[in-house]
Amino acid sequence: MSLRVFLPPSRTEEAQAEITLDGDESHYLAKVRRARVGDSVEVLGGAAGQAWSARVVALERRAARVLLLAPLPPPQPPPPLRLVLLGMPDAPAVLDSLSAASEAGATRLALVRCARSQGRGPSPARVARVLRAAQRQCGRRLALVVEGLEQPWTLERALEHHAEWPGHVAWARGRGRPSAADLDAPAPGRRLLVGPEGGLTDGEVTLAMDAGFQMLSLGPWVLRTPTAVVAGLARLLPRST
Amino acid sequence: MSLRVFLPPSRTEEAQAEITLDGDESHYLAKVRRARVGDSVEVLGGAAGQAWSARVVALERRAARVLLLAPLPPPQPPPPLRLVLLGMPDAPAVLDSLSAASEAGATRLALVRCARSQGRGPSPARVARVLRAAQRQCGRRLALVVEGLEQPWTLERALEHHAEWPGHVAWARGRGRPSAADLDAPAPGRRLLVGPEGGLTDGEVTLAMDAGFQMLSLGPWVLRTPTAVVAGLARLLPRST
Repeated sequence: MSLRVFLPPSRTEEAQAEITLDGDESHYLAKVRRARVGDSVEVLGGAAGQAWSARVVALERRAARVLLLAPLPPPQPPPPLRLVLLGMPDAPAVLDSLSAASEAGATRLALVRCARSQGRGPSPARVARVLRAAQRQCGRRLALVVEGLEQPWTLERALEHHAEWPGHVAWARGRGRPSAADLDAPAPGRRLLVGPEGGLTDGEVTLAMDAGFQMLSLGPWVLRTPTAVVAGLARLLPRST
Repeated sequence: MSLRVFLPPSRTEEAQAEITLDGDESHYLAKVRRARVGDSVEVLGGAAGQAWSARVVALERRAARVLLLAPLPPPQPPPPLRLVLLGMPDAPAVLDSLSAASEAGATRLALVRCARSQGRGPSPARVARVLRAAQRQCGRRLALVVEGLEQPWTLERALEHHAEWPGHVAWARGRGRPSAADLDAPAPGRRLLVGPEGGLTDGEVTLAMDAGFQMLSLGPWVLRTPTAVVAGLARLLPRST
């Protein structure tokens, strides 16, 4: 796994700048990953998603320093815009879903209170840690933007968000509904609605269909929520990717 | 989540047969799921993947009984044949990958010793538990068939297995190799090669390409092994599914 650290909130971003990392990042570098002076490292958290190649120049326990070398080129083509509307499962499954959505390339994710949603969402602090870990793992430049953390959205509100993008409902074939998703038409972005554990109710599916969503089959078997997020986002990748 | 139990190894499978479940299944029904007499239940583990609708008729702690009602129809169309060649990550990630491959519809999975594989595989007993839990969760009729558990396959051997099926290498776009997978051509089955954590080496990718595999892009960011299994299998679903 590549070595990735985050810039502190206030920083100078330019080649040859020497940056002192904050305590958590210094600890991660020195203790968790046992980096050494001279190691190559990728620095995330720059303005507008800029990432840098860098080198470790000092390793004090709570104040490691890295030297920025050069900005890393953005991915080509840029990642497509993907909004996940997540029917809230229980808190551990929400965290797994956030991690999955991050890796699988979602841009934004909104927590939606559905009929079968259970319990409360995870705390903002846990969410921030999970999103940072996902960025370290997968290398994405910008964190997944999460909405509805304090107050989950209603399904009605969720279905109106980015209504100009094609909408898809993650669906296990076993439930017996047809799939008619047009996956290869050009679109500025796409929306993926994933039900909580236990699934969307028939009424909720009807609401989504009335809002123009199409069923997107994810195969013959029922998926857990985090698995459905990954499978749905993978199916929304253009065929020619 | 639906209530699903497994038939004991010796059983009579016919409508109106009353089946005594084994100790683990009885415990699961009575204690874990707190089922009641009269509850509907799905019975898995029949010959050749037959599943039954059934009803709970007695709930003793180590000997619950269910009445088979009618065989459940097989999924239409039948799930496609999918072989996952899993470059072995560490044991926890192997278990997560088996669970993910089960839900996402893989037929078989072979553990493959790659250059960056770490440690030993999980024990057969843990694998059996994970596969059973995945069946309970997703409802698939037949367990994922796992090969290479005692002795992981070499990559050379893995690439020769079902060589008549199109082969795809799970690949994160960030690594800079082209994708040219023909995903919509009819095929009797498909093979998906997923690297361990840290990825396949260039030499291993070359070996796969020489064996006729194509790169299959899973989006712009690096995925953990279990995530790549789900994303890869979802991308291999026919467009019209």
